[in-house]
Amino acid sequence: MKLKVRTVELYAKFPTVLLNPSLQFKLGIHEGGRLKIERDGRWIVATTYLSNDISSLNIGIPKILQGELKVKPGQYVEVNYTPPPKSVDYIRSRLKGAKLGKEEYLEIVRSIVGGSLTDVELTAFILSQYSNRMSLEEVKYLTEAMVSTGVKVDFNRPVYDKHSIGGVPGNKVTLLIVPIIAAAGLLIPKTSSRAITSPSGTADTMEVLADVEFTPNEFKEIAQKVGGCIIWGGKLGFSPADDIIISRVEHPLDIDPESQMLASILSKKLAVGADFLVIDIPTGKGAKVETLDEARDLSAKFTELGRMLGIRIICGVTYGSQPVGHAIGPALEAKEALEALMGGGPHSLKEKSTALAGILLEMAGLASRGNGKDVADELLNSGKALQKMREIIEAQGGDPNVKPEDLPIGEYKATLYAPCDGYIAEVSNFAVSAVAKAAGAPTDKGAGVLLKGKRGYVVEKGDPIMEIYAEYESKLEVAYNLALKLQPVTVEGMLLHRFPDSI
Amino acid sequence: MKLKVRTVELYAKFPTVLLNPSLQFKLGIHEGGRLKIERDGRWIVATTYLSNDISSLNIGIPKILQGELKVKPGQYVEVNYTPPPKSVDYIRSRLKGAKLGKEEYLEIVRSIVGGSLTDVELTAFILSQYSNRMSLEEVKYLTEAMVSTGVKVDFNRPVYDKHSIGGVPGNKVTLLIVPIIAAAGLLIPKTSSRAITSPSGTADTMEVLADVEFTPNEFKEIAQKVGGCIIWGGKLGFSPADDIIISRVEHPLDIDPESQMLASILSKKLAVGADFLVIDIPTGKGAKVETLDEARDLSAKFTELGRMLGIRIICGVTYGSQPVGHAIGPALEAKEALEALMGGGPHSLKEKSTALAGILLEMAGLASRGNGKDVADELLNSGKALQKMREIIEAQGGDPNVKPEDLPIGEYKATLYAPCDGYIAEVSNFAVSAVAKAAGAPTDKGAGVLLKGKRGYVVEKGDPIMEIYAEYESKLEVAYNLALKLQPVTVEGMLLHRFPDSI
Repeated sequence: MKLKVRTVELYAKFPTVLLNPSLQFKLGIHEGGRLKIERDGRWIVATTYLSNDISSLNIGIPKILQGELKVKPGQYVEVNYTPPPKSVDYIRSRLKGAKLGKEEYLEIVRSIVGGSLTDVELTAFILSQYSNRMSLEEVKYLTEAMVSTGVKVDFNRPVYDKHSIGGVPGNKVTLLIVPIIAAAGLLIPKTSSRAITSPSGTADTMEVLADVEFTPNEFKEIAQKVGGCIIWGGKLGFSPADDIIISRVEHPLDIDPESQMLASILSKKLAVGADFLVIDIPTGKGAKVETLDEARDLSAKFTELGRMLGIRIICGVTYGSQPVGHAIGPALEAKEALEALMGGGPHSLKEKSTALAGILLEMAGLASRGNGKDVADELLNSGKALQKMREIIEAQGGDPNVKPEDLPIGEYKATLYAPCDGYIAEVSNFAVSAVAKAAGAPTDKGAGVLLKGKRGYVVEKGDPIMEIYAEYESKLEVAYNLALKLQPVTVEGMLLHRFPDSI
Repeated sequence: MKLKVRTVELYAKFPTVLLNPSLQFKLGIHEGGRLKIERDGRWIVATTYLSNDISSLNIGIPKILQGELKVKPGQYVEVNYTPPPKSVDYIRSRLKGAKLGKEEYLEIVRSIVGGSLTDVELTAFILSQYSNRMSLEEVKYLTEAMVSTGVKVDFNRPVYDKHSIGGVPGNKVTLLIVPIIAAAGLLIPKTSSRAITSPSGTADTMEVLADVEFTPNEFKEIAQKVGGCIIWGGKLGFSPADDIIISRVEHPLDIDPESQMLASILSKKLAVGADFLVIDIPTGKGAKVETLDEARDLSAKFTELGRMLGIRIICGVTYGSQPVGHAIGPALEAKEALEALMGGGPHSLKEKSTALAGILLEMAGLASRGNGKDVADELLNSGKALQKMREIIEAQGGDPNVKPEDLPIGEYKATLYAPCDGYIAEVSNFAVSAVAKAAGAPTDKGAGVLLKGKRGYVVEKGDPIMEIYAEYESKLEVAYNLALKLQPVTVEGMLLHRFPDSI
């Protein structure tokens, strides 16, 4: 069919043209379907929006696509239905229950990175993983395809790495583990994420101490120079398909199918050439993984996939029912991590960090089995990890002599008090996160929550149990009111039951 | 956050604005997330595209949304993250395994019709039906919500209706059933679909004989006047959510989850106030339903749902392994239907039509149980159905005296011949459809396929087995070559095996 070109401005994630709805039957095309648009031997493929804003004699083509076609407004182009790319057939097959192979995953991932899948098609690929669970073979193919379409950094020496599946606020252990491992002489080029739905991602926390945005080459240089780094992975292009899937589908729907999570994590580790990897699986009420059985099952998948992909993986199942340490929010967490490196800070944070670091040290042969945590404790307590952290901060453009008290915490503060004598029965991950976010975290670096007690602490009526910090008075008020409503810290009287309960 | 308005032209299915990617962390928003945009007490909610084409001090707002906000380019607006509508929470719950109730479905369907769901969210709703099967209660709520958000026609007398779940080419039985039922004095206001992926929808076939696009009021008038009609349902607005779901998700992905199909069909029947409904379930190889067990299961769901929704439903499981009748394509099918009404035409077409019509006649009490087909045969053979069809054609603006030979069939013709003596072992639904579409159907009304034999016919080498008709020579060539490749009609020699097979 011949149609006359009209200029329209269209923003979409893939080449898109505008068509009158009456043409859909003539062209045999549905909304979002693809057209081949040709003139003088040149052609493009574009998806379609239907709109009555354009006449049935015209086709609306954005300037940039007019340039590719070398056509001008008023000229005629030949327009025909064209089938979707092969990757869409594969996605349809997956929806109908098929298992896919290496070539099919490569084709799908190429289409994702190349921007040729519509939102409907991309969503279908992710959601097919719920109705038709991926085999580990499939996850392997998906992971390899995600790596092969991204940037890869080669260090030419053994690479150690650490990952947490997340879900628990205050989990700043990376800021202790990386310097401990690097202080042991091992290479740990760590990339981390920023928060989108949590009060602080590791990259947000590290950003309080140093820069976190670097190019792949700078990333490599820094890690090689000081043995470790903590850098935002979002712009390095290590697994571009993963970034697209997360931002276009997983965040909007607040989902993370297990198979996609496995491929996401391992693709980013393969991109930095990780050989040894410890994975933190916080487990407990309110965490991503709620029971020990689920944690075991997930660990088995990680280690088996690691074997298939050539990464040695050990999973550490950690306590995930309440926040890690006492601080939640970028500056509060950076401060707590720095204090811990300097010998202070909460016991639980140091325990968790050295336990996970110890696993890596054992994998490296720097500690005998069962002895890794002791070696990690020694690296932490001797100040060697602190010294290494200062090197890392300097290499990433921060002040190597930074002190905890230098870090600016929000000047507005509210305190919650124990309503009765008793003990702390629960600290809710969800409620603590919500209050910290309401206070301004992670955008306002100084905003967040400081817990004055955790599960099992004995408190007296009127003791402070939680402090909220904010950079703006208005946000403090919102956060404080939310805290009164959600009660993130539950205090229970020691007397649980009373018999008989009459009188 | 304050941002300066810049004009952009955006085409999307919901209000959309353009934002620099660097603002996503500051606003806590993902691509496709929603922003509340305010000025002087007015506000709108819009979804977001991220693009480097716009600076981080600006927000790109299309003219139409600027009008709603009463802002001009260069003015400042207050921009903040706002959570998605409640319906998105419900969709997320469904994805995670929850069953939803009446209110939740109403909210989701309102969001679909109101255009406030993104493609990602809408796709997630449809695909959740695979990973978390809908209960019949849920299908009921969904159906009722789809009806309550659309146009409803009330006839104030018992309404009879017929539906085929489709999947078999050549299924022009509606053109016989509607006049038979109307000739019996019953009211059958039938709406039909156009083909998007098949060679001819019933509305495409009927359009050869009369107009099929009418308003709801005209639809009502025509049906009341002559007792029946065959009209395109696409623009009547009976179940707008269904039309949106089909065009935005189901066609692009070539899927049709059972629960959505049930709700789709029954919502359109409830919209015309159907009291009695016969459903044709073509069953067999290459049809939508392949086995008798599946057909029984689907029938049970239809009748039970009918009970819950107040429609009496009987399902007819019909032979679906090959096309119905001999003709495939709009004009060829209209011609065959007219011939059948005039006493000619293929036996199989008349058998199927009167069997299904007979069920409705029994439901109406116009025939005793087991006797409906005889009464339908009588209405067909006596010419009463033909007379009624001529009235319907006239009421829909067509020529009531039309003869089969008046209908223009494509002037280009190619014939396929039996390659050996034997019998026809198979006529492939898929291949026949593909060849008819390649020849130009349904856009070229005169294009299609005429089968010269069907399963079980004995043929001699060189007998014609299939004719292809086209309006354009080039399309005929494409269709003929496709036919040579796909071999829609399989002829097998009588000798199936030979032992021993060496000499």
